[in-house]
This record gives sequence, structure tokens and C-alpha cells, in this order.
Amino acid sequence: MPQLRKDPITGRWVIIATERSRRPTDFLRGPVVIQAAKMCPFCPGHEDKTPPEVLAYRNGSQPNQPGWSLRVVPNKFPVLRVEGDLNREGNGMYDSMSGVGAHEVFIESPDHTVTLAELPEKVVEDLFWAFRHRVIELKKDSRLKYLLLFKNHGEAAGSSLGHSHSQLIALPVVPKRVREELDGAQKYFEFKERCVYCDIVRQEASDGERVVLETDHFLAIAPYAPRFPFETWVVPRRHASHFETIEAESMPNLAWMMRMLLRKMDRVLEKPAYNFIVHTAPVQEAAQAHYHWHIEVIPKLTKVAGFEWGTGFYVNPTPPEEAAKYLREAGLV
Amino acid sequence: MPQLRKDPITGRWVIIATERSRRPTDFLRGPVVIQAAKMCPFCPGHEDKTPPEVLAYRNGSQPNQPGWSLRVVPNKFPVLRVEGDLNREGNGMYDSMSGVGAHEVFIESPDHTVTLAELPEKVVEDLFWAFRHRVIELKKDSRLKYLLLFKNHGEAAGSSLGHSHSQLIALPVVPKRVREELDGAQKYFEFKERCVYCDIVRQEASDGERVVLETDHFLAIAPYAPRFPFETWVVPRRHASHFETIEAESMPNLAWMMRMLLRKMDRVLEKPAYNFIVHTAPVQEAAQAHYHWHIEVIPKLTKVAGFEWGTGFYVNPTPPEEAAKYLREAGLV
Repeated sequence: MPQLRKDPITGRWVIIATERSRRPTDFLRGPVVIQAAKMCPFCPGHEDKTPPEVLAYRNGSQPNQPGWSLRVVPNKFPVLRVEGDLNREGNGMYDSMSGVGAHEVFIESPDHTVTLAELPEKVVEDLFWAFRHRVIELKKDSRLKYLLLFKNHGEAAGSSLGHSHSQLIALPVVPKRVREELDGAQKYFEFKERCVYCDIVRQEASDGERVVLETDHFLAIAPYAPRFPFETWVVPRRHASHFETIEAESMPNLAWMMRMLLRKMDRVLEKPAYNFIVHTAPVQEAAQAHYHWHIEVIPKLTKVAGFEWGTGFYVNPTPPEEAAKYLREAGLV
Repeated sequence: MPQLRKDPITGRWVIIATERSRRPTDFLRGPVVIQAAKMCPFCPGHEDKTPPEVLAYRNGSQPNQPGWSLRVVPNKFPVLRVEGDLNREGNGMYDSMSGVGAHEVFIESPDHTVTLAELPEKVVEDLFWAFRHRVIELKKDSRLKYLLLFKNHGEAAGSSLGHSHSQLIALPVVPKRVREELDGAQKYFEFKERCVYCDIVRQEASDGERVVLETDHFLAIAPYAPRFPFETWVVPRRHASHFETIEAESMPNLAWMMRMLLRKMDRVLEKPAYNFIVHTAPVQEAAQAHYHWHIEVIPKLTKVAGFEWGTGFYVNPTPPEEAAKYLREAGLV
């Protein structure tokens, strides 16, 4: 019989189809292949095709010239812009706000054809350092209430450019799903006087059956009530509400784990499209005992249908215990 | 400058890219084409390939034989089943429930190759009658808290079989997004002492710029803060919280409007994949002054990326005023 499981943070129920479990090979949609591109705006030598960089890791070369290993630029077609005043307006019964914010692109490597999973560990570490650097810079602008760090990999996951990159979107409001997660974690805290994510880390590390990877500082797990097959969370063992407070000594740990996880997904799911999203507390809010930053990695294997849109109620054809086992046991070449 | 707009029911913010508005032709992904199939389990003569029917409209022929115009059968691979007890269980910090529910398929016509938009108005009306019939039947089972009526059309919208069909999923819990909509509507009601949807109908009918279609009983509008380009809501003018309370005299009106809307979408967006979802109050709850049933129709034009998953914060490249104008002005052949 299928099982309904409740996410302990948001209270979201998912249906886990334990009866007709689907294996990795049932999902294969063709590997993400990076096409060569003559006029890629992210390639070295084309620095003038993007807005001027806001951050770059370079070996002594000039800004907006080749010679960088990582480069952060404003999105040429941003969904939100920094300029302008934050005006709220009424329109009959409706409310609107001017679209103040920011949208930045993190070009992870000068190499056009290599994916993040294939790049050296140092590149992954640099990406997370650059995330941290930009968050610390942008949070000085008190209009920006939420900074969203994420990566779309492959067209099926919403990526329109092949050259490996991640993104930051700064928003003038805290989005609804983020607030829902914060509120859910707070309710748990009020009841238990413990952080729900700390409890998850404890229970998962002790159970073991949903653990994908472990390091001294992080745990990668298939969550108990995943929305999607092979959804995996990377959770720091030490409590902290804000990603940007990560200690320097944890960075190599995080980079190793993220890269290893992506490589395992590439292996088991044959180079799937994926999204990862850094879930972190709103930048303008103080450290929170009830919230715990983490990263959610979601390979794009299934199509979200009317049922899911209508209800926020997901049907997941792969139990997380099986997904974790496939990933845990995947040997790497 | 892009504009942030707030949905008056759920409080969800969306970014409307008013600057670089995208036209219908920017979205075309190739029309949905129904492939002929030798062994379609929904075609007449193959009645034994589905579980026995729970409802059919027939001209005197025997159950589970050809001679029907519409047929409702349990899904052969249901996400939930009627059999079994509804047991809640703890598992350390986690909660689960046995997957009691129902999953039914509405085969809209014996004709394999014709889409709902292309079928006669009578077929669309029959589909909504069949929805109503099954809801009234299933709500007698008090374990079933929510009945979700929806249609996935085309592979991109999650449909796996070409033969035109809709679905019903009966759930033992009220899903989170549904509860969120109910709660949002209730908050508005507490503040204004009016139904938010009744207010929307009034304001939209009076403004006119987001109206797609009007009949005596229904209004089809592009909502003020749509998540997706060309998202359209069909809202009854008369207040009612539960779909199944629809009066017989409204049915031809609803059928005409749904068919006309789908035909206009076929015209403007060149036969897109789409989902429609009936939003209605939980079946076991009494009539509600604050909630108002309606249908949300979402053509599947864009890919949902990491940004949307992470935040529930949507970027919509087409202002609803423009989407409504395209649909309103679309001539039909």
C-alpha cells in the first residue's frame, strides 16, 4: 500500500509509492550535454558581453579581462534591478511593489564544456566562497530581505546557457515558501525547544538508512518525505541559521560533499538536469535558534503535473531509503 | 521596471516582467499531437483493459462493453486505494499514514484522436456532470477529506496517455496549498466581511482589462498576480464554496466557457499542453461564506526552475493584461 509521509518542518504530506518503486533507469531522460558555443558570453575573451563584474577570482589580471577562475556579473536580463525606489502601491483591491532587487550570475569556471560535478573540488569551494562574499556585500542594502542562491543545471531544470553557472536573486520580500519553512521550524521549536533540523541530523545519523554521505561537518540525506525521487539535502551538523556564517574550516568539507553528491547523481541517474537551492534565513534577521541552513538538491526526473500544482501534494515513486541506497553505493570512476 | 504583484488570496508575490513582455510566439513548444495507438486501454472494445467502470453514460448498452459516450474507471495504477484502514503511525520524529484514498480516470469520449477542446460542447458538459456525480458519491466516505478534480493534457503537462481523459484523486488529508487558499480567503473575509473571490469578480468585471470571457454565470479572467503566462481562472459569479453544488442551469454555461477558453488557447498558443484544476472546498466541510470554488487553467509554456522551487516566488514574463487581450481577441476558425 502506498504510504503518506509528513515533512516534519512544513507539514507537507507526500505519497511514497512503496509498492511499485521506480528504479533509476526508469527515469533516464538523456544526459545533459554541454554544447560548444561560438558566442558564449561567459567564456574568457567575451567579458564585454556581460555587465561589468562585481566579483572575480583572478591571478593579478585586470577586471573584465581574461585571466579569471570565477567571475560574478549582474544578469544582463535581470528579473529585478538594484536601481529605483521600493514603492508599494494599491490598485483597487490589489497590491503591487516596484521590482527592486538584484540578479547575479556566478560563472564557475572559464571552461565552457565542463560541468560543476566534473570540475575540481577547489572550483566548488570557490563557488561557495563567492556566494558568501556576495551575500555579505548585498545584505548591507536593507531593502533586500531575502537572498536566494541556486543553480539550474541543464535545460530541463530551467537553464538557458550551457556554460556552468549559478545564480543569486535578491528580493525585497521574504518569499512565501521560505516563510513557511521558517514558521514550521519555529512551531517545532516552540513545542520541543529543539531545532527540527538538529533533530533530523541526529535521527538520520543514528538510523543510517537515508544517509547518502557523511563528513565531519555535514550530512547528506534523502529526507523522510521527499517531493521528488532522489531529492537530497545537505545539512550542516552544527546549528546555524544563516549560510553566510559558515566557518572557513567547513568550506572544504561542503565542497567535497556537494561535488561527490553531484558525481554520484551523474553516475546513478546518467548526468541528469538538476537544481540546487541554498535554504537560509532572511539576511536582515538575527541568528535564529529554530532555523538551520541547508542545501536541497533536486534532480529533474519527473514532470510536475496538475495534481501537484493544485495541491502542493506530491507523489514520489521512489522511497527515499532506496534512493539513498543507490546513491550511497554508487561507485565512482 | 519589473513589477511585484501580490495575490490577494494567498499573499504569494510574483514578478511580472512588464519590460520585456513575451508574446505567445515566444513560448511555442510544438503542438500537442495525439498519436494513434493500437492498444489504447481507453478505446471502445478494450473495456476489459481497465478496472470495471464506476460510472458511464451509455445508450442502453451493458456495463464494461462498448456503446458509451463517457466512462469513469479506477486508475489501474492508482496513487491511492480505497481498501484498507486509515492508520497513523509515528517513526521516531516522523509521521506517516496508510495511503487510503481513490484515483479515478474520466475517459471523456470514445474517440481516441480528438482533444477536449475539439470535442462538442455536450462532451465538456458531460465531463463536469460526471465530476459532480463522482464527488457526491465519494464524499459519503468520511475518510476522504479532499477530492481533487483535474486534467493533464499533453506530455509536458504530465499526461502519459494520449486518449483524452481527466482525473479525480481522493485524499485522506486536506493538502497544504488548498488549506493555504482557504486560510487566505478566510483572513480576507474576517477583515472585509466579504468573499475575496466575489470582490475579484466585481473588480475584474468592472475593469475589464483582464477579462477573457464572460457569460451570465461565469467570468474567465487572467488573475492579477498569475504565476504563469496565460494562466486563466474560470470563476462562477454566484458565491458557492463547493463545486458539487453547481446548479443544472449553470452547466451549459460552464461547458461553453471551458471549451471556448481551451479553443482560444489552442489558437493563440498553438495547441499547448495544459493543466486544469478545480479548486473547491473540502468535501466534509459545510458551505463556507469565505471560499468560492473556481477552475484554474494553466498552459504549460515555461519550465519551472530552481528559483520557483526554492521560494514559491514566480517570475512571469507576460503581464496578465496582455495575456487576456491575446485570448479575448483570438478569433476562432
